[in-house]
Amino acid sequence: MSLPRSYDAGVLSALGALDAKSIKHVFFIACGGSLSIMHPAKFLLDQHSPLASDVYNAAEFVSRAPRSLDEKSLVILCSMTGTTKETTAAAEFARSKGAVTIGLTVEPASPLATAVDHVVGFEAPYTTGVPIDAKNSNYARIYQIVMGLVALAGGEDLTQPLVASLDALQPAIDRAQETFAPAFEDFAPRFAKQDVIYTMASGASYGAAYSFAICVLMEMQWINSQAIHANEFFHGPFEVLDKDRCFILLKGLDSTRPLEERADGFLHRFGSAENLLVLDAERLDLAGIDPVFAGNLVPLIFFDTLWRFAYKVAELRKHEMLEARRYMKKIAY
Amino acid sequence: MSLPRSYDAGVLSALGALDAKSIKHVFFIACGGSLSIMHPAKFLLDQHSPLASDVYNAAEFVSRAPRSLDEKSLVILCSMTGTTKETTAAAEFARSKGAVTIGLTVEPASPLATAVDHVVGFEAPYTTGVPIDAKNSNYARIYQIVMGLVALAGGEDLTQPLVASLDALQPAIDRAQETFAPAFEDFAPRFAKQDVIYTMASGASYGAAYSFAICVLMEMQWINSQAIHANEFFHGPFEVLDKDRCFILLKGLDSTRPLEERADGFLHRFGSAENLLVLDAERLDLAGIDPVFAGNLVPLIFFDTLWRFAYKVAELRKHEMLEARRYMKKIAY
Repeated sequence: MSLPRSYDAGVLSALGALDAKSIKHVFFIACGGSLSIMHPAKFLLDQHSPLASDVYNAAEFVSRAPRSLDEKSLVILCSMTGTTKETTAAAEFARSKGAVTIGLTVEPASPLATAVDHVVGFEAPYTTGVPIDAKNSNYARIYQIVMGLVALAGGEDLTQPLVASLDALQPAIDRAQETFAPAFEDFAPRFAKQDVIYTMASGASYGAAYSFAICVLMEMQWINSQAIHANEFFHGPFEVLDKDRCFILLKGLDSTRPLEERADGFLHRFGSAENLLVLDAERLDLAGIDPVFAGNLVPLIFFDTLWRFAYKVAELRKHEMLEARRYMKKIAY
Repeated sequence: MSLPRSYDAGVLSALGALDAKSIKHVFFIACGGSLSIMHPAKFLLDQHSPLASDVYNAAEFVSRAPRSLDEKSLVILCSMTGTTKETTAAAEFARSKGAVTIGLTVEPASPLATAVDHVVGFEAPYTTGVPIDAKNSNYARIYQIVMGLVALAGGEDLTQPLVASLDALQPAIDRAQETFAPAFEDFAPRFAKQDVIYTMASGASYGAAYSFAICVLMEMQWINSQAIHANEFFHGPFEVLDKDRCFILLKGLDSTRPLEERADGFLHRFGSAENLLVLDAERLDLAGIDPVFAGNLVPLIFFDTLWRFAYKVAELRKHEMLEARRYMKKIAY
């Protein structure tokens, strides 16, 4: 079989060089925001292939040194700038064990790009401020890698519907901005006053919830947060819920949606609707996105639209989104 | 090879019925506090075997339905009372796919015990109030299962040193109570006043940090919390750190300790020592515990000793540890 010509050139080149049938284990490795895309990547792989895989923070991966890492492993790494030291070290470690490495980065001359066997470029709006098409995002690239690998390893070939779905993604995001705008306008003044805001999701959307909690709320707004898994919620965390507590709940379209629906019901039973910002993918117009990938693509819609919400909150807090940092890239650590 | 006679009878029976060499994938499945022991179980397996494994919340596992789940899978589940519906459903789901199931529970007549192929009993002090020996805890049982599986599958046989180490664990915990008591006494009055307390760890200790955050701080004390991975800390969460912010940091003895040491350095550089409760396993007397398992066993020491701290905090907050619940087991949900 061969991959669609419309696939990203970097992905085609990386997968073309791979003996896909020899791969026994995939490692998805990164830190922070880049790690957040690895959870949905594994979710996609889990549902389409029996291939074993792990998601690890890059430093955890190196110091854990799993025995399953060997020359039959494919290690997929991501760092937006390509300068994340832990991720570059993880690439070097993986290669020293004989594994094949693919590095996703915006910067083709970065340390990560130099450390890996194959570089896959992507675009990111929040480095340059220039809007991108979501089909060129890191999510899109890693989904192409995963479904390409599935097809090349002898599994189902869903690469054509994936490409078509990614082409339809940016228009769906643009429409979603309008769908969610009134809620963002409504909730921002209340959420801007909070010291604690939780995010919640499951399945393919968990990574988006994680990223919004640690990179946006904690890092950019210094608001205390945690991404709570929608079912783990019922096994401890729900006890912090009261009428004043604020949650952002992502209700996706993947097979774990019933978990998010159950959490939604509980939140509304014991919390206040005005403190519960629920993004429900069922409200979205996903024209052109193949139903088989809808659950995998809505997390990008959630995350992209939530940026608008974050900027509204930041403005009300008078707390700069991209400049207000105490530590990150301000000091050596 | 044969397993030590001093192994737990339930573990011996479960592993004895298993064709260990046919197992290709291990799933560690539970919810909440029981899920927290699955992370260190996977850590142990990762470092001693190339066997693939996953840790999933039980409801996530069923709705995700990973393709790798089949008759060559071993699914290890845990529920203290054996009544966690999601975990019982996960056992039934796993069996329907032909997987072998082992269920850990305190209650041999519980729904989980009925749903699995093999039951492994354990003891838990916080159900009965009666102190137990840690060698009979769920951690000890799952470690026996993991290292038994490694040996039976043809890997290194470390089952004898594991048994000896587990025998030495309770005395080490008892000594640790004395080691940490002054710090607990010192920190409890300040921590009792907090609305937010983070826990932090990596590697084998991450599960203990997770459990303390969601089951003790959030569930039992209604304190906002998150278990932050010690390296993920540097990729977003550290921006919430200031002189007033409270953290509990677990510094273990496994191979990820350098990650926790780096976090420790940063916490003390920008936080206040009086708000940073650091449990350092290097201060402990671990006589009788084989160095190969020290990193795996200190999380139990951390968790057991932290209960004492939690009770001190609860007393100062006048917030009952085991009775004060809004929702859990008080209402139907």
